[in-house]
Amino acid sequence: MLSESDEKEQLEAFGKNLRGIRKEKDLSMEALANLAEIELSQIYRIETGKINPKLTTVLKIVKALEITANDLFRCCNLE
Amino acid sequence: MLSESDEKEQLEAFGKNLRGIRKEKDLSMEALANLAEIELSQIYRIETGKINPKLTTVLKIVKALEITANDLFRCCNLE
Repeated sequence: MLSESDEKEQLEAFGKNLRGIRKEKDLSMEALANLAEIELSQIYRIETGKINPKLTTVLKIVKALEITANDLFRCCNLE
Repeated sequence: MLSESDEKEQLEAFGKNLRGIRKEKDLSMEALANLAEIELSQIYRIETGKINPKLTTVLKIVKALEITANDLFRCCNLE
């Protein structure tokens, strides 16, 4: 069973990866929030691993960044 | 802004795709629930688009099915 700390680590890794991709694309958090139609505060909390985003939020981010799901999930050792 | 009905459609498409992949792998819902360490009822509600699963739940499913995130998200016209 994935412990709470494992989940926390996963969310932090996911957030760090998202921040990296966003910066690679020279997007500010505000710009991503607008593109994805998500609250700025939510983008901040996702990037800092504070919240466990829902599927539809993740889909909005993937679309807004014009990346693949694999890009966004490469943080989470799925191989 | 993604309307509620768009989100509903996305969740149903995601669930249908998940069900397809699960069946391709000859796994019952119970088997997937055990592998992913997720409640059977939750697998059912995800597959029928009734709930909007969290990121960590999606990660558990991707790992349990030994697929890529792209496989699981191919339903959701991200290209």
